[in-house]
Amino acid sequence: MRVALCQIDSTVGDFAGNVARIVEFTRRAAVLRAEMVVFPELALCGYPPEDLLVRPSFRQAHDAALAELTLAVPRHLAVLVGCVAENETAGTLGGRPLHNAVALLRDGEASIVARKSLLPTYDVFDESRYFEPWKAPEQNVVTIAGRRVGIVVCEDGWNDEHFFDQRSYAIDPVQRVVQAGAEMVVNLSASPWSRGKEEFRYRMVAAAAARHRVPMLYVNSVGGDVELQFDGGSLAVKATGVAAQPVAFREQLILVDTEQAWTQTPAPVAVEAMQQAAIVQGIRAYVHKFGFQNVVIGLSGGIDSALVATLAVDALGRDHVVGIGMPSTFSSEHSVVDARQLADRLGIAFHLLPIAPLQASFNTVLQPVFGQAPSGLAEENLQSRMRGVLLMAFANQHGHLVLTTGNKSECAVGYCTIYGDTNGALAPIADLWKTEVWALSRWLNREGERIPSRSIEKAPSAELRPGQLDTDSLPPYAELDLVLRCLIEEDLSVEITAKRTGMSRERVAALFAKVQAAEWKRYQYPPTLRVSDRCWSGRRMPVAHRYREQ
Amino acid sequence: MRVALCQIDSTVGDFAGNVARIVEFTRRAAVLRAEMVVFPELALCGYPPEDLLVRPSFRQAHDAALAELTLAVPRHLAVLVGCVAENETAGTLGGRPLHNAVALLRDGEASIVARKSLLPTYDVFDESRYFEPWKAPEQNVVTIAGRRVGIVVCEDGWNDEHFFDQRSYAIDPVQRVVQAGAEMVVNLSASPWSRGKEEFRYRMVAAAAARHRVPMLYVNSVGGDVELQFDGGSLAVKATGVAAQPVAFREQLILVDTEQAWTQTPAPVAVEAMQQAAIVQGIRAYVHKFGFQNVVIGLSGGIDSALVATLAVDALGRDHVVGIGMPSTFSSEHSVVDARQLADRLGIAFHLLPIAPLQASFNTVLQPVFGQAPSGLAEENLQSRMRGVLLMAFANQHGHLVLTTGNKSECAVGYCTIYGDTNGALAPIADLWKTEVWALSRWLNREGERIPSRSIEKAPSAELRPGQLDTDSLPPYAELDLVLRCLIEEDLSVEITAKRTGMSRERVAALFAKVQAAEWKRYQYPPTLRVSDRCWSGRRMPVAHRYREQ
Repeated sequence: MRVALCQIDSTVGDFAGNVARIVEFTRRAAVLRAEMVVFPELALCGYPPEDLLVRPSFRQAHDAALAELTLAVPRHLAVLVGCVAENETAGTLGGRPLHNAVALLRDGEASIVARKSLLPTYDVFDESRYFEPWKAPEQNVVTIAGRRVGIVVCEDGWNDEHFFDQRSYAIDPVQRVVQAGAEMVVNLSASPWSRGKEEFRYRMVAAAAARHRVPMLYVNSVGGDVELQFDGGSLAVKATGVAAQPVAFREQLILVDTEQAWTQTPAPVAVEAMQQAAIVQGIRAYVHKFGFQNVVIGLSGGIDSALVATLAVDALGRDHVVGIGMPSTFSSEHSVVDARQLADRLGIAFHLLPIAPLQASFNTVLQPVFGQAPSGLAEENLQSRMRGVLLMAFANQHGHLVLTTGNKSECAVGYCTIYGDTNGALAPIADLWKTEVWALSRWLNREGERIPSRSIEKAPSAELRPGQLDTDSLPPYAELDLVLRCLIEEDLSVEITAKRTGMSRERVAALFAKVQAAEWKRYQYPPTLRVSDRCWSGRRMPVAHRYREQ
Repeated sequence: MRVALCQIDSTVGDFAGNVARIVEFTRRAAVLRAEMVVFPELALCGYPPEDLLVRPSFRQAHDAALAELTLAVPRHLAVLVGCVAENETAGTLGGRPLHNAVALLRDGEASIVARKSLLPTYDVFDESRYFEPWKAPEQNVVTIAGRRVGIVVCEDGWNDEHFFDQRSYAIDPVQRVVQAGAEMVVNLSASPWSRGKEEFRYRMVAAAAARHRVPMLYVNSVGGDVELQFDGGSLAVKATGVAAQPVAFREQLILVDTEQAWTQTPAPVAVEAMQQAAIVQGIRAYVHKFGFQNVVIGLSGGIDSALVATLAVDALGRDHVVGIGMPSTFSSEHSVVDARQLADRLGIAFHLLPIAPLQASFNTVLQPVFGQAPSGLAEENLQSRMRGVLLMAFANQHGHLVLTTGNKSECAVGYCTIYGDTNGALAPIADLWKTEVWALSRWLNREGERIPSRSIEKAPSAELRPGQLDTDSLPPYAELDLVLRCLIEEDLSVEITAKRTGMSRERVAALFAKVQAAEWKRYQYPPTLRVSDRCWSGRRMPVAHRYREQ
């Protein structure tokens, strides 16, 4: 059977746009003489629609779009598209009102041919909030072009106890559809990228193809939905290999013939290449989905802001990125030099807004009430907040968006000023550890120095008091990141983290306390592009609690 | 049977404190010759522990606390306490690793005697993220003092299809335990308050008592957990009435005898009294849980900041609240007069920090780059942000927390400046519509004018440009709130909202678009005390999407 895997970029709630996109791909598939055309999970409404699903009017708009789509696709094609379906027994038997489902469009008719059984409700995923799990995945088999096709939706393919060595859920929908006679299995997914995801996903799908001895057709979304970055990477896999190289971070129609031998092996891609592509996609999608074109970034001469500016240029073009240097009396001389050099190399506009007059003015206003000039933390935070206000003033005056330049390490321990350097509409690198920030920056310089090497090499400093270094308050980042990965990404205890990293238990406990104390800052942190499987919005911790570890 | 309903205030993660509290109440119950003592849902670890439950070390600490508690309570007492229990079949059959459970402590032994079947996963609740639903609630029956006691946990009591006219879930655990022979039903709850909750809860529990003809013993948490405000309001209900008047917003041991006649009817309480109590509890709990004592509030002379300051005084005492007036050249004369009068009436410290010097200074810095002074939105937002920076400087210098003064109406339509007047550690009234703000303020003045009447009566204005009024940009709040309640609290479409309110469809659509456009501000909004069943953190909308309604 000739199958078109359509890796498309749906936008949440853009029914007209999504319908048009799906129709366009089905027409291309028809020209290529495909017999079956497959789109991603919830391709009709975009993923994740979240509480829009609670609005009856949204569901009506969805149903109208599905009806329109059904009549608009080429009649003779069998089109599988991810959509929402009513749970018909919710009223009588109870349960959530909807299913995460798959419609088969054929000959001007739409029928729901599959419903999702395994609903991810962890990390950034909240599907149990909206959908009822489907208890009978063995019914998700339909005949298309004379072949029995088993259909599963995303997480349905992630519960093979042979592959994972244990079950997360009671049933394995892939096994069920194969036992029910499926000659091939189609997986419609909206599976966002995180570090290592593409390689893991291939191994998992390949294991299923080998175990069940049927072709696995895996179709994934592509495109950015605020924090989530869908990478596509759609796969057609038999036990012998893949039909074509997966394509990451762009739309693609992949035509495969299930009768042919598939023998390729996916070529590995550097993690930095995937990170760059994910973040670039994320910046572009977010800025454009808000109807903006331009961003403004505070450039400190440090590596975080240099990396964000470089990625923003890759996303939007150099004419759409503005850098602002905001030196204080505590700023090093190289801070402005390095910032300007970066701007010159990137070819972006650069403005200087020295904050000394503002510092003087705030001191004048505050001194009578404080009985002294602001000091300590108040003085340090003031500088950061003046800069945050200047960036927002520039953005408001010119209709730009501010990008936040914080990284995951500083965000973890609260080494940042809320309403200051955390200001922004989007935080592109707040899910990258500082050590990853350096690695990605070096990788971006692999064919020539885009980011000034001094910004990469110099000791990190907030420059909020004379001679300040990050290491005055924190361990070196190589050590810090190791500890934070244990505590945050692996949920290890203070005790085990200390054993594993060699840092003393007291110091680990102090860092764990810092992570907890920063919850309220993260609660108000901008949306962050997700490139790990433990990003901030997927880690839902109480803002205030009294749990301590020693 | 003599039963002690222990309405206690557990703190999330404070195992030592929670154990001590539970032990203290059991000793009081023993003195009162109770035979059974009942504590709320998850009383051992506090509700909601959220992703702390994902940490193995947290679960170990929980289990150690349960073991300690088991030995510490009076041996002869039967103590029911909400706790976490392992899902023993997760490893083999799949499913979430935990149950939301109830332990019976008796004679130095702990046994899990009930597990929760119905897991709220909507609004602010995410229980499906952590817990496996219990399929056999009929097993939740245990013999205590010779009587068969049925045990359910919170939501388990909220699926009576006779009361609700429909089912939300497949099973009714209350019916199951009664069918299994329960002579009384105990409900351990952590059910946060929202408008009308206490009255609805009584009707529901009373309906169950009447239908099943058994005493219903409903024990609810009390106390503030960041956004959620547990009101207690524990109830002992038979078909004939309640055993004692429910007590709201404070800890209480309620001793009841199931053999006696219960004939009281709960006295209704004014909604404003409940709102005040909830917000006061919330401010106090949040400030103290963070280890702070004092708050600082920007006082504009308007009603929102006046109400927040008054409630903060009720929560913390007048010596722990500081007001700051920050007039600009656009501020009305009465703004400072009214702010100072409020401060005088409340007896709180008040400082003036005029922002004119800062405005001049920002203009000086920005003019060379802008080619003009900041104008329009940039100029308006700058003023709000200078104030936000001043408040944070005061808080940082003195170790105070900033309270945010925004209300739900302005938060809904984005009539606020992010990183400006939205700054703060907690937003006490951001779940109160503006019309509710006025009503609550008038109620607080019922025995004498605490809030200056001019602050209540004058036309709302942001005072960010000469002569500005809220009604320049928005409909009058009485109309606006009506529309927003339809759109947000009832999820009605633009079309139906227009029909119901009489506002034109175009104007409703424009307001709906404003609500959507403000999602990114709310994403970064401070934690908000929840007093409705559609607060911001329980309404999970995509930050950016393209769904529109007309």
